[in-house]
Amino acid sequence: MQFTAPTIPPFDHNAANNARNRQNNLTKPTSSLGRLEEISIQIAGIQGTMLPSVNKKAVIIMAADHGVTNEDVSAYPSDVTSQMVMNFLHGKAAINAISRYADANVRIIDIGVNYDFYDAVGLENHKIAKGTSNMTEGPAMTAEQTLKAFRIGYAIAEEEAQVGTKLIAMGEMGIGNTTASSAIISCITGLPVSTVTGRGTGIDNNGLTRKITAIEKAIEINQPDISDALDVLSKVGGLEIAGLVGVILGAAANRIAVVVDGLISSAAALIAYEIHPEVRLYLLAGHQSVEVGQKAVMDRLGLKPILDLNLRLGEGTGAALAFNIIDCACRTLCEMATFTEAGVNTQW
Amino acid sequence: MQFTAPTIPPFDHNAANNARNRQNNLTKPTSSLGRLEEISIQIAGIQGTMLPSVNKKAVIIMAADHGVTNEDVSAYPSDVTSQMVMNFLHGKAAINAISRYADANVRIIDIGVNYDFYDAVGLENHKIAKGTSNMTEGPAMTAEQTLKAFRIGYAIAEEEAQVGTKLIAMGEMGIGNTTASSAIISCITGLPVSTVTGRGTGIDNNGLTRKITAIEKAIEINQPDISDALDVLSKVGGLEIAGLVGVILGAAANRIAVVVDGLISSAAALIAYEIHPEVRLYLLAGHQSVEVGQKAVMDRLGLKPILDLNLRLGEGTGAALAFNIIDCACRTLCEMATFTEAGVNTQW
Repeated sequence: MQFTAPTIPPFDHNAANNARNRQNNLTKPTSSLGRLEEISIQIAGIQGTMLPSVNKKAVIIMAADHGVTNEDVSAYPSDVTSQMVMNFLHGKAAINAISRYADANVRIIDIGVNYDFYDAVGLENHKIAKGTSNMTEGPAMTAEQTLKAFRIGYAIAEEEAQVGTKLIAMGEMGIGNTTASSAIISCITGLPVSTVTGRGTGIDNNGLTRKITAIEKAIEINQPDISDALDVLSKVGGLEIAGLVGVILGAAANRIAVVVDGLISSAAALIAYEIHPEVRLYLLAGHQSVEVGQKAVMDRLGLKPILDLNLRLGEGTGAALAFNIIDCACRTLCEMATFTEAGVNTQW
Repeated sequence: MQFTAPTIPPFDHNAANNARNRQNNLTKPTSSLGRLEEISIQIAGIQGTMLPSVNKKAVIIMAADHGVTNEDVSAYPSDVTSQMVMNFLHGKAAINAISRYADANVRIIDIGVNYDFYDAVGLENHKIAKGTSNMTEGPAMTAEQTLKAFRIGYAIAEEEAQVGTKLIAMGEMGIGNTTASSAIISCITGLPVSTVTGRGTGIDNNGLTRKITAIEKAIEINQPDISDALDVLSKVGGLEIAGLVGVILGAAANRIAVVVDGLISSAAALIAYEIHPEVRLYLLAGHQSVEVGQKAVMDRLGLKPILDLNLRLGEGTGAALAFNIIDCACRTLCEMATFTEAGVNTQW
């Protein structure tokens, strides 16, 4: 697919090294803050400063429906997508509660839900279509739809950059989207469909078989060009996934750190990485998913989830929970005294 | 040792069951919030309400020195204890930065530091002695000192109850205190000293051998009565550990949830559990320690750490980091809509 990848500024290794040196001089035994040190050093390199801050945070939830749900691949009907969007708007879903605690702004984007929301308060209407086409019968999206969704996500990240957001969590809602995500991951990694496909919101054994069969059929009928990530995204992906790819690349282009959540945002991260490998250094993984396909992405991108709390909800909940850890990581780097400042006489 | 264990109110299984039922009716697939659900249900049982809140939090840091440091068991000199206490008071240590993020009050208690702080602002002076005696030559503490330290901790927990604190993290500072903690854990669990002894702040191989030898010698010379947890605490423990035992039991007596941190607070939790097994249901484990002895305590008490971020700092940092997860757990339980409230038509 014809597409010019956006420019991503190089990760600032100098700032990261300065942060590492500072960590080694803070009042604690060397490396005793473990992952917090690594996270703070990464954010320093992303922001290009030894003293990074992530005090302004946002959760971007992209919502869309999936034609492949006609193949009975999900435990729940498509209606739940729009109903959960309303629940987000009312501030009553898990992601709302977690985001309030982390003082993160939640944006809910209708990029392709099969429902007329009319003027629902708080919803950002960027509907491209009322869901994707059934990928077992042909491409899920046209090339034009895919690029449009990408540009919507990219523009949203640019808006966040303009208001000073420093940390973005990937959120999503879309019944059927673990099916699309596993299809993407299988195509890009080359792993068998059955190896990267899980139970989503909780389908039974027969459902899992139908899901795997549907993905295999979609790949067979569409023959995505695996050397072209956008072709894969277009043929077996989804509107919200394409939107998240745009958010990731738009965030990285603006030196904003992005926190990947579960399977769906991992599939988006994989596409973004194929488009522009430098994006990897702008990504953190918030939570270990129970979905098997996520691990394949983590391995490929060299990411290690911060949390492992047995969540399997999506919405961006694992990423937003990790916001707290990432913020604490930056605060320890910035707020702790060095040995000299504290008058502690021994380099631990 | 003659001692009457305090009364701990029974865990409220009715409230916990109500919380579990509510979790099952919230707008998410059943159990999809994983550990967050378990945590919220436990806090409901501790507080005796279906809708628990942990909005008021405290970190209690007990600081004391250890005579056993004469055996060269630590990578750092005893002076660091008092210097780090000053660093805490100035708000410049890791625990301060993390506690500020979690909106937790930090209390610093001198229960036995070998240093004259005079009127250092913010320090609570409950100094019992200028450190323990060298346990390789006789009991670390007298029975009277042990009970005094216990009562100080208990009274502090009661003070927290009076101001409405709902969540307490166990913090500590004391060069040499991993040696005392491993000694306690070996005595109570019956595991060999070498199995439950680690490198603390980072001693080398020779240091580790000295540390194990010192613990074995202390146990040999003192012959603690392993059926009497307070005797073990007195002979091979420490003033800050005894204080933390008091905090734990005082918190549980007042239906306050306690978050255990690393090895030292785990040793305190083990003693508290031996005194009163019901305390277990009031405990959460904040962080997986790299110290091997902690796992022995986790296994014995059936606790599973919430975080695993490769921290080995102590101070209460792992517990205070987990505050964020525990708070989010309670908020999702309280703030999410049920299916009926949200108009979501399908029980996920």
